[in-house]
Amino acid sequence: MPPRRLLLTPGPTPVPPEVLRAQAEPLFHHRTAEYQKLFEEVSRGLQRIFKTRSPVYTFTASGTGAMEASLVNFHSAGDEILVVDAGKFGERFWRIAKAHALKAQILKVPYGKAVSPAEIEEAVSKNPNLKSVCLQLCETSTGVVFDLKEIGRRLRGKNCLLIVDAISGLAADRFEMDAWGIDLAISGSQKGLMLPPGLAFLAVGERARQQMTGAMLPRFYFDLALYEKALKDWDTPFTPAISLVVGLKEALRRIEKEGLEKILKRSETLAEYTRGEVRKMGLELFAERPSNGVTAMKVPAEIDGEKILYEIREKEGITLAGGQGEMKGEIIRIAHMGFIQKEDIDCGLRALETALQKKGTQQR
Amino acid sequence: MPPRRLLLTPGPTPVPPEVLRAQAEPLFHHRTAEYQKLFEEVSRGLQRIFKTRSPVYTFTASGTGAMEASLVNFHSAGDEILVVDAGKFGERFWRIAKAHALKAQILKVPYGKAVSPAEIEEAVSKNPNLKSVCLQLCETSTGVVFDLKEIGRRLRGKNCLLIVDAISGLAADRFEMDAWGIDLAISGSQKGLMLPPGLAFLAVGERARQQMTGAMLPRFYFDLALYEKALKDWDTPFTPAISLVVGLKEALRRIEKEGLEKILKRSETLAEYTRGEVRKMGLELFAERPSNGVTAMKVPAEIDGEKILYEIREKEGITLAGGQGEMKGEIIRIAHMGFIQKEDIDCGLRALETALQKKGTQQR
Repeated sequence: MPPRRLLLTPGPTPVPPEVLRAQAEPLFHHRTAEYQKLFEEVSRGLQRIFKTRSPVYTFTASGTGAMEASLVNFHSAGDEILVVDAGKFGERFWRIAKAHALKAQILKVPYGKAVSPAEIEEAVSKNPNLKSVCLQLCETSTGVVFDLKEIGRRLRGKNCLLIVDAISGLAADRFEMDAWGIDLAISGSQKGLMLPPGLAFLAVGERARQQMTGAMLPRFYFDLALYEKALKDWDTPFTPAISLVVGLKEALRRIEKEGLEKILKRSETLAEYTRGEVRKMGLELFAERPSNGVTAMKVPAEIDGEKILYEIREKEGITLAGGQGEMKGEIIRIAHMGFIQKEDIDCGLRALETALQKKGTQQR
Repeated sequence: MPPRRLLLTPGPTPVPPEVLRAQAEPLFHHRTAEYQKLFEEVSRGLQRIFKTRSPVYTFTASGTGAMEASLVNFHSAGDEILVVDAGKFGERFWRIAKAHALKAQILKVPYGKAVSPAEIEEAVSKNPNLKSVCLQLCETSTGVVFDLKEIGRRLRGKNCLLIVDAISGLAADRFEMDAWGIDLAISGSQKGLMLPPGLAFLAVGERARQQMTGAMLPRFYFDLALYEKALKDWDTPFTPAISLVVGLKEALRRIEKEGLEKILKRSETLAEYTRGEVRKMGLELFAERPSNGVTAMKVPAEIDGEKILYEIREKEGITLAGGQGEMKGEIIRIAHMGFIQKEDIDCGLRALETALQKKGTQQR
């Protein structure tokens, strides 16, 4: 067991000490005024992070649960939707759609590339039956951030919901739900929000809300009507993950104390620094339009990317991320979101450099 | 804010200090050998608690998520099922069934009463189309434990799944999944397992497993096929609530150290003691067949049950549970499962006695 544990993965990310401590406090009951006060505070705090005046619902679930909620509450079987597939999480959207008998038209984008806003606009203009467009803010598996502002602008006035998985992007890449015309926005606890995994969020704009009653897909645990009713009393329909919600309060307080703008600026600076260092190491960046939350780099052809990461984790206690799905072994990813500091990034990059140099020497 | 916080509710229950501490440890990544080892340990530990050789799947969700999983993975729209409704959680089963267009035949049992095993056998014999029987081990809302051993015996050889919500009963009331012929068993983290809420469990027997592929209800987040594939590598398909799983390891170690048999015996003794004390206070017990996990008592007609509980919580920092749904204000419930000790029960009962006496004096 290595003496330290440094997480530089795009989820889970390191959790600040006061958040860890808050989660170790004895539990209290969730059907109390004390919990309602807490849940009001975090629900309002989340609205400020999503930059929306619409309600944000909290599920006890992984982020994928909120992705499913964003489809099942607003669609009926056979509905046509457009899914941007530029990586593992785009793919997840159409897998969920398929499981629920939605007709998903897939806009395939090569891994590492950003989707063209014009292409989305064209696809939507061509097919007036499209009920929604689903895509990521940051496609975590490739480190690409999409131009949601421009995509939102082009879809304005179209009769089609814009559904954004901002799980890894939120509080790292700029995101403005209301200003950009986004109808549904999804996030999770274990990324920019600096919490352990276990909470998923769904912000529901007014236009989307109006489509809920007509949506016939079966649902229960993720049925927003139940959450909507409960949120009127700052409550949830089912027992919430209380300790994580307590932690969320501390994490949101930290974010508000630093200020979201400063955090976004810090992520940007850290991302630029990371990309510069990666280039200096002679590695090629993978993402055409790189996220400020995570940097992906190509693994040199002669190197086994998975093996390198394994060695760094075992020897140094530092966890970097590899590629997912068809990118396995092809790329290495390092996160710079949430509680991750420049010093952490330096540790990760130096460990990577050393490991790559050793491999180079061994192979010569 | 009262100086202490004593939870005597049938979920969440108090969490032992070493479990709280474990959850405050810095996170590690879940796609690692370290996590696989942890997840193997807890998954095998859960099998011993459920008393089954079949796999137990862990969801990041409230217990209700696992209830939904127990229906959507084994049924198709229009399937007929029998639901025992003897309280709020029986009712939840048929609400989930209704949301998924199952034809639920309801066996209504008056609140506070236990379902008759003979009635279940009769209903199943009369309707050969029934695909499953759904009921609780302990109906938490009334404090009644059902005779699952006898129900299992009477359904043996019938072509019908026996689905048991053991959320509040597990590790408090005796439960033997394999020996009693139970096909699917559900539980949650925040009851006898002494964890915060956020994890739900589903143990899947072989006969149930064989029906998965033919079950056509749409599902994704709760699709067991994905969990089954992942569990082969002691993994989950979606990012798990890592800190809760770390806590679960500690909780299971505590349970194994004391021994499940001893814990069941201790719950039984504590339940008998509690019922005796309640009777001494001149209160009437509510449950016909009382659970060893929670004791329900009737609130005297002249007393406002909800107000009493509010006062005890505000003044003493002790949380007792009231009635749920149509039982609101009618009953008071006190839990004696998991980490709850005799001293805690005494504190709760004395606080209740004092509050009831004051009310009596005021009204005279």
